Amino acid sequence: MSTFDHRRYRPGPVVDMPSRQWPNRTVQNAPIWVSVDLRDGNQALMEPMGVTQKRRLWSLLVGMGFKEIEVGFPAASQPDFDFVRWLIEERQIPDDVTIQVLVQAREDLIRKTFESLQGVSRAIVHVYNSTSPVQRERVFGLDRDGIKAIARQGAEWVLAESRRHPETHWIFQYSPESFTATELDYAVEVCEAVMDVWEPTPERPCIINLPATVEVASPNVFADQVEYFATRIGRREAVVLSVHTHNDRGGAVAAAEMALLAGADRVEGTLLGNGERTGNTDLVTMAMNLYSQGVDPRLDLSDPDEIVRICTECTRLPVHPRHPWVGELVYTAFSGSHQDAIRKCLARQEREEPWDVAYLPIDPHDIGRSYEAVIRVNSQSGKGGVAFVLERDHGLVLPRWMQVEMARLVQKETEARGGELDSAEIVALFRRQFMTDRAPYRLLGYRLDRNGHDRIEVRIGSPAGERILHGEGQGAIAAYVDAWSRWSGCSLKVVDYQEHAMGAGTDAEAAAYAQVDLDGIRVAGAAIDRDTVAASLRAVLAAVNRHQAEWMEAA
Amino acid sequence: MSTFDHRRYRPGPVVDMPSRQWPNRTVQNAPIWVSVDLRDGNQALMEPMGVTQKRRLWSLLVGMGFKEIEVGFPAASQPDFDFVRWLIEERQIPDDVTIQVLVQAREDLIRKTFESLQGVSRAIVHVYNSTSPVQRERVFGLDRDGIKAIARQGAEWVLAESRRHPETHWIFQYSPESFTATELDYAVEVCEAVMDVWEPTPERPCIINLPATVEVASPNVFADQVEYFATRIGRREAVVLSVHTHNDRGGAVAAAEMALLAGADRVEGTLLGNGERTGNTDLVTMAMNLYSQGVDPRLDLSDPDEIVRICTECTRLPVHPRHPWVGELVYTAFSGSHQDAIRKCLARQEREEPWDVAYLPIDPHDIGRSYEAVIRVNSQSGKGGVAFVLERDHGLVLPRWMQVEMARLVQKETEARGGELDSAEIVALFRRQFMTDRAPYRLLGYRLDRNGHDRIEVRIGSPAGERILHGEGQGAIAAYVDAWSRWSGCSLKVVDYQEHAMGAGTDAEAAAYAQVDLDGIRVAGAAIDRDTVAASLRAVLAAVNRHQAEWMEAA
Repeated sequence: MSTFDHRRYRPGPVVDMPSRQWPNRTVQNAPIWVSVDLRDGNQALMEPMGVTQKRRLWSLLVGMGFKEIEVGFPAASQPDFDFVRWLIEERQIPDDVTIQVLVQAREDLIRKTFESLQGVSRAIVHVYNSTSPVQRERVFGLDRDGIKAIARQGAEWVLAESRRHPETHWIFQYSPESFTATELDYAVEVCEAVMDVWEPTPERPCIINLPATVEVASPNVFADQVEYFATRIGRREAVVLSVHTHNDRGGAVAAAEMALLAGADRVEGTLLGNGERTGNTDLVTMAMNLYSQGVDPRLDLSDPDEIVRICTECTRLPVHPRHPWVGELVYTAFSGSHQDAIRKCLARQEREEPWDVAYLPIDPHDIGRSYEAVIRVNSQSGKGGVAFVLERDHGLVLPRWMQVEMARLVQKETEARGGELDSAEIVALFRRQFMTDRAPYRLLGYRLDRNGHDRIEVRIGSPAGERILHGEGQGAIAAYVDAWSRWSGCSLKVVDYQEHAMGAGTDAEAAAYAQVDLDGIRVAGAAIDRDTVAASLRAVLAAVNRHQAEWMEAA
Repeated sequence: MSTFDHRRYRPGPVVDMPSRQWPNRTVQNAPIWVSVDLRDGNQALMEPMGVTQKRRLWSLLVGMGFKEIEVGFPAASQPDFDFVRWLIEERQIPDDVTIQVLVQAREDLIRKTFESLQGVSRAIVHVYNSTSPVQRERVFGLDRDGIKAIARQGAEWVLAESRRHPETHWIFQYSPESFTATELDYAVEVCEAVMDVWEPTPERPCIINLPATVEVASPNVFADQVEYFATRIGRREAVVLSVHTHNDRGGAVAAAEMALLAGADRVEGTLLGNGERTGNTDLVTMAMNLYSQGVDPRLDLSDPDEIVRICTECTRLPVHPRHPWVGELVYTAFSGSHQDAIRKCLARQEREEPWDVAYLPIDPHDIGRSYEAVIRVNSQSGKGGVAFVLERDHGLVLPRWMQVEMARLVQKETEARGGELDSAEIVALFRRQFMTDRAPYRLLGYRLDRNGHDRIEVRIGSPAGERILHGEGQGAIAAYVDAWSRWSGCSLKVVDYQEHAMGAGTDAEAAAYAQVDLDGIRVAGAAIDRDTVAASLRAVLAAVNRHQAEWMEAA
């Protein structure tokens, strides 16, 4: 019996705050980024990271430019304790990086936490307790004052322990856990109580971190909660306001972004969103979002493939092919109209101008991707995609009428196969279909006499042996058509004709495309030759041969 | 050489609208849901769906309760055309379901589209053209008026074709594609031009769909754009306002949710977020978000495992383990404090009360998941998780002091192994460590004489053979302790003792837990027996034996 019934649930929180300011703002600067990969991320793994993986991930985080890194919960886990000791004793922490450790507001755990940090030059001690009604009533069996007392007591223990280690520069952080489900006035009250103990100043601020421990509302409500808090908390200038969002409703990144508008200075999250349940804010996505709008992300994301590789090895969790910015498929357009638009925009994009390409929010090259992946050709790609691939990969710039016919052939082929064609298959299809200048007729040679009225002598290989044709007209093609018509008795006209060099230099090949009318039937052909005249003659011949082949097929 | 440089990009759009109302609202009702799985979703696949997959997905969508389903782009794809014909000719469309087809504003395509729909009783014809500056300037080479003319002309062709098929109830839909990158006043102007042609009325409204073709800003900006549009468009009461968001910045769901606040009536998206690039709004997440706040989602999501199974088979795309609501890991808590809180909340959760469990936004049973997955025990699980597993899977309700010791043993074991313990391994560890009442001493039998002062005669197996012990005291345990002390010469006291029935009925077994003080050392033991007295005596004996074992190990 299914219990599926929405009436089991209550509405999410709302904040009555018509004077909210955050929707009027935009993000102008990257926040202070804090990686919690080694703590929240690690604790949510089926197989927690071993020493090797932790060290690799640490190196990656430092290399990317994180300046604050939560490295564990040393009082609750021996491996975390050992890792903190390794960082300190092996001098792994660069001068501009501060490690952070998490601990509950319990005396024994706080003591053990400071023990793990002995000798570190600077560290953030992050103490928390849970403040929401369900936690107070069902988990702790305490009232508001009782829970506030836990927070204050935790702050006191942290302060007392820190005084026993004056050689270290201590930074205190407090989180009212389950903040998003906590009454806002009470959250402010608890944090004030903590700050009464710590007495932060603008010169020695403390960090107050507001966690969406569980995402319980849409991101605009979180922004309201943060703005409410930010505008009511005392000693605001002595507080670094931090957020830590989870993704239960799929809104972790949006919530953190809007929290910045609402006054947050600092964002805790993980690479690619690892973390408890649905995970944390994905800092890669959030930083790339800033990047794509011209804001310095202050993280090195130029090689996300390396980030993906290390993260997947350390967490043994996959990255979805549609993961924003870094997924396999995110710079791929299958739709023909998308492909056509991308091709046109890329052709007009100057290096110095701001990036402005339809369907590609950034230049994939920026993060080590290439346009290779942008276009794949399936039955729905249309002429734009096919044309793009032929031009990009093979230097063939098809006339529009040939694009249309080629797209139809690709569609037929992909629908028959039910898959897609890669670049090599597309050009093979093109050669097979249009570059048909070998049989039944073949150009063996020509002699062109250009003196006012052009005359041509063409040597053709045919099933019946070699033939010499003669014709004349305005230009080589006209003379050639004349020669062919006289010899074959057919009515041959060239409807359209285009030719272009493939690549630069005097020895570049030429590609020619001809659409002819042969006894009232339109048919197209193409050819490539070092000699531009031969290329055009062979293109016409290819069209004639295609007509022949179709005629024979039909017969 | 890396091109990673944020200065290549421009800021995203902003809307100057201090009077915005959407942040003051909450979503009270589910929108009209539109699945575009068979169009946007399908066109973005490496291998587009075959006939079998399309039919399966169609059945799933209908079964879930979708009333509007975009089934393809029949003018651009023969398989889509054929699928539409199959739906119509094989009478696959329930009376309350309307199919929708997409088409560009081009005459030949519109004609072919209507051809595909011949004989359908009701259908939505969805025509679009792109309106943003980059599309106007770089792709179409047209100015504002030129692009507006395309839209108006498309609307006219659609209207004209529809009049040729008066037997069908036609619903018209227009999308200013790339709406989020389009000047808002211009988007309104283009849609007004389309509506001038269609002349919708409140009785015969048209659909205006606002696509975030590419997500270019954070979701609050999209909400501003939608509210701007909704409050300026004429004939608002004759418009069903729809949105179609993509996930380039990871905000597709949040954007669609905020669009509802801003006035949208209808949401286009896909199951689990398939679609071009980063995908579309995930309708499963969005509907579950509503569900979890007590709003009727108007989609049957009681069996998401079936949805996941069919989608992954049809799209050949994976679902991430942390995917909101449906991922493998999203009802899993690894952290000890989380597990402890969940256990306490579950114990207090009454079926009739609104759901209120820390870290579990919904009851996983509602969607066919079970608590099985909630707790996995690793080195960071703490006593809560261990206690939960022992109680849930094995009916063992450990006293707090035993939870603490057991958690330490589990932590030691998991840290040594670097992985996690499953339920069977946990109970095996518990039996090995605490249920040590077999050696060196073993209870063979007892005789209890309860007449005021209890006397006991205990038969014990020992390494030296069978022994008969005698003792007396207040109750069986006291008498037993007395007997043991007299015989062994040790100082034995029972510090705490707990016992409970395992399951119901007269033949249920009893589990007993004893913490003893043996010569000043505290040690705990446990035992299970059908006889409650034997269970308690054996628990004490288990503790004594553990002491013995530790003593022997130390020696």
